[in-house]
Amino acid sequence: MEINIGQHILNAHQEITAKNKEVLLKHGVLTINLMGSPGAGKTSVLEALISKMKSSVRMAVIEGDLYTSKDAERIEASGVPAVQINTRGACHLDGKMIEWAMQQLPLADVDLLIIENIGNLVCPAEFDLGEDLRISVLSVTEGEDKIPKYPLMFKDSAAVILNKVDLLPYTDFNMEDFYRDLRLLNPDVAIFEVSCRLDKGMDEFTVWLKSKIKTN
Amino acid sequence: MEINIGQHILNAHQEITAKNKEVLLKHGVLTINLMGSPGAGKTSVLEALISKMKSSVRMAVIEGDLYTSKDAERIEASGVPAVQINTRGACHLDGKMIEWAMQQLPLADVDLLIIENIGNLVCPAEFDLGEDLRISVLSVTEGEDKIPKYPLMFKDSAAVILNKVDLLPYTDFNMEDFYRDLRLLNPDVAIFEVSCRLDKGMDEFTVWLKSKIKTN
Repeated sequence: MEINIGQHILNAHQEITAKNKEVLLKHGVLTINLMGSPGAGKTSVLEALISKMKSSVRMAVIEGDLYTSKDAERIEASGVPAVQINTRGACHLDGKMIEWAMQQLPLADVDLLIIENIGNLVCPAEFDLGEDLRISVLSVTEGEDKIPKYPLMFKDSAAVILNKVDLLPYTDFNMEDFYRDLRLLNPDVAIFEVSCRLDKGMDEFTVWLKSKIKTN
Repeated sequence: MEINIGQHILNAHQEITAKNKEVLLKHGVLTINLMGSPGAGKTSVLEALISKMKSSVRMAVIEGDLYTSKDAERIEASGVPAVQINTRGACHLDGKMIEWAMQQLPLADVDLLIIENIGNLVCPAEFDLGEDLRISVLSVTEGEDKIPKYPLMFKDSAAVILNKVDLLPYTDFNMEDFYRDLRLLNPDVAIFEVSCRLDKGMDEFTVWLKSKIKTN
């Protein structure tokens, strides 16, 4: 009985997500589901990306957090339309929330929509939000053991951003294990070593992401 | 209907947890639910605690991870009995898992049981595991904004360990906001500034934790 109910909820989620995807497709929007731990630096990566891209690409952002609108305020300050979703305790974004947020955005004038998911390596990975690509952010201070410990998120990512590499000298992060475990899990993944503080690696990531944008 | 099913599952969980709690109480075990983000340093804190306590306190550890037994191996190497739970995708530990793990441990010879929960700031906070105290670990590299963004975990913690303070000079962590937001949320919380790498702050935390251990 539990399984039936669960299946019913999942089916409803898939239905809303399929509708969202259709709308995004119609507008030619490339949609990214940006995931990672709390404090991995998702919003900082996003701010750096906006500063590099906004003159040539029409961007919009959906920010997910349990509480506060701190992140949407940071993004709006960088001059890109942003909508904050507060899940009020829920551990991931879902199709219904995305549907609402999409209605607040001028999608006809957007080429790239980035959805910053809840800071959580587990639950967000289990929910398709209708995205074209998943991108995960892992910071070196979290440790390379997070790849085998939380495989689903990294297995399904088109790109992994290894963030805060400026802190490498002060951590025990094992770069060799990181590359080995990640490539074993996901042989085709694009990997970018990034420091938002030092503006390192973001140009390469921007070029990669630009190459994915849909041309009408 | 969804609510009834959910309630049924929650009631079953409370029942198992109450039974677990009874067994722990009978043996006079102080039980800690240790929580925090992936990579906040929960296992490192635990290793440091073991090295300071194991000569005077009989300890045991339950390690929670989605996959791998890396953490239980680290703890066993430090000379304390440890049981690894692999949730295989689930985002928090639950009563049934704890019941099984407790059966693997010599509880009659244990004064302090530490349960290291899944690295996740959201879901673990919603499940009572029969613990006496919750302790959260936040690392400075995650940012002070995690307190208002993930309030439940920090609101219910008897102590918060602010870890990796050796990295403060390389981050934008705002100590003033951290203390203000945390004390606003949880006025009675004990706060420890810790660096496991530099062995800073762990003596103070050890003294505090020892004062909580039950004397038969």
